[in-house]
Amino acid sequence: MSRSSAPEPVTAVIDLASAWLPARMTEVERRLALAVEGWGEELGDDAGETLAAGGKRMRPLLVLLCAGPGGDAAAIRAAVAIELVHMATLVHDDVLDAAPMRRGMPTVVARSGRRRAVATGDLLFSRAFAELTSSNEAADANRQVDQLARASVALARGELAQRDDEFDTAVTIERYLHRCKLKTAALFECACVIGAPRPEAEVMALTAFGGEIGLAFQLLDDVLDVVGPPERTGKARGTDLLDGTVTLPFILARERDLNLSGLDLRALDAAGAEEVCDRIMATGAPDLVRRDARERVAEAKRRLRGTGVRPAELELLELVADGVVERYS
Amino acid sequence: MSRSSAPEPVTAVIDLASAWLPARMTEVERRLALAVEGWGEELGDDAGETLAAGGKRMRPLLVLLCAGPGGDAAAIRAAVAIELVHMATLVHDDVLDAAPMRRGMPTVVARSGRRRAVATGDLLFSRAFAELTSSNEAADANRQVDQLARASVALARGELAQRDDEFDTAVTIERYLHRCKLKTAALFECACVIGAPRPEAEVMALTAFGGEIGLAFQLLDDVLDVVGPPERTGKARGTDLLDGTVTLPFILARERDLNLSGLDLRALDAAGAEEVCDRIMATGAPDLVRRDARERVAEAKRRLRGTGVRPAELELLELVADGVVERYS
Repeated sequence: MSRSSAPEPVTAVIDLASAWLPARMTEVERRLALAVEGWGEELGDDAGETLAAGGKRMRPLLVLLCAGPGGDAAAIRAAVAIELVHMATLVHDDVLDAAPMRRGMPTVVARSGRRRAVATGDLLFSRAFAELTSSNEAADANRQVDQLARASVALARGELAQRDDEFDTAVTIERYLHRCKLKTAALFECACVIGAPRPEAEVMALTAFGGEIGLAFQLLDDVLDVVGPPERTGKARGTDLLDGTVTLPFILARERDLNLSGLDLRALDAAGAEEVCDRIMATGAPDLVRRDARERVAEAKRRLRGTGVRPAELELLELVADGVVERYS
Repeated sequence: MSRSSAPEPVTAVIDLASAWLPARMTEVERRLALAVEGWGEELGDDAGETLAAGGKRMRPLLVLLCAGPGGDAAAIRAAVAIELVHMATLVHDDVLDAAPMRRGMPTVVARSGRRRAVATGDLLFSRAFAELTSSNEAADANRQVDQLARASVALARGELAQRDDEFDTAVTIERYLHRCKLKTAALFECACVIGAPRPEAEVMALTAFGGEIGLAFQLLDDVLDVVGPPERTGKARGTDLLDGTVTLPFILARERDLNLSGLDLRALDAAGAEEVCDRIMATGAPDLVRRDARERVAEAKRRLRGTGVRPAELELLELVADGVVERYS
């Protein structure tokens, strides 16, 4: 249950947008580059590499789309800030997992060690908040800082909750979903409302939209950890299990294959983890999780209707939502 | 060159203040407790223990004193936020150093492991920014977020710079001071200006005041690592050297004892580190550093005069400045 980062072009969405979106995504990229360059020699190449390694920029895309063509500089800054927070959590996650590679590049922790990686994450995190305050409208910046800080608190709580549940094969579905909401959905929710101020009813609908696709995103990521293939995911099957992280495919499978419940995850090696993945697949649990994710995406799209989002952006947001499912199908 | 955290009562200063200060420090404590309590079961006891372990609350005290009796809720929130950032960096520092104890209590990393400690630091960090936005005045909150974010960037850059210099026995005084400014002085500077808006000239003077006492604080902390005694500092002499961190006492000593320059810090063990400390002491370098720190405190006090700080607060700030020196003399 790592945060997903497999590269996936969002070019389809950007191509479909009217002229405003590509120019703003370019501006987001430019500001992201500035954010990791302009802070002294100390940062060196680490943040630059993290940035260059890319990722889907799905969160900035959501920020800009939900703010709409009327979104101003504050929307662009929010898009930058949210990606910086995402990058910071990836760098810290890699410290925790001692991960060697991400997005086909060596991780900061692998390149430069744990000390530099923790500090690099802290720096990206601080830069995110600095980005928001450079906006002109103090009231707007204040709202954005508040929303981003709350989402960041959720991310950290999600990580803590995952540690609490470590190696617990009896963890409940509710608890798992609670973790996913904190660890993944909260930042998606934030992305959908941080770009521009909106009436309360729209904020609620956009939050629901972001939350559902965030959950779908995490559910499908957890399926990938079980089904692979490694050539596509860039990591061995069962990595979550080896880390002691029990996810929905396992939870659903253990009700169908009672031997799974008694498993001692601490005793697993890589081959054993792959074997457990095979047994999870044999129960059909991954398909159930995929179905749940698809239903969440459909619900997300329903929640968008009747909001103030204009038809052109609505179409693009639905494409993004569909993209979450398609890239895993 | 760890960030200092030896317990030291600031009661003398608080007792001397008119009624306004103790009540506000109590409010800061109350809000600090709320900040680490109100965020779900996930945080558990870790942040609470970090908070309970205390510390001098020197930074919040500076925030309140520099804001003066006219400082409002925004000053209290800033005091809370700055202490939360300080706590976050301590938790992350302890992860990096795998430190077992701090302030006479087990560290978060020792209690709960690296994963929980990194996440706990991230959570405290996020909470700091959330704290600032709950203030009423958006313009004020925006200024405070900007100042705190910049200081946090400096802290991370300071840590990165220290990593760059690791095991480099030839590091220059300028480079060492640059590191101290980033790693320690930046947050003191921030503490002195974040509480309340002031005219530009006063901001400059208060920044200079904070910067000088921050540097003095770090210089004297680095002396303690060399001279001990361990019963007082709570850590073995030469801990910095074992970490590969070269500080001013060593830099000044190597000009007087040429054998020190050729030292391979990577080959040091605990006994060897103590021996190096003895040699540094034999050169008289620690006294030179102490003198430099005292001069910085004197300069800090000079910078305060002619600012808009009222005489009553001026007196208290001078006491705080003197306290930095006295606790190490």
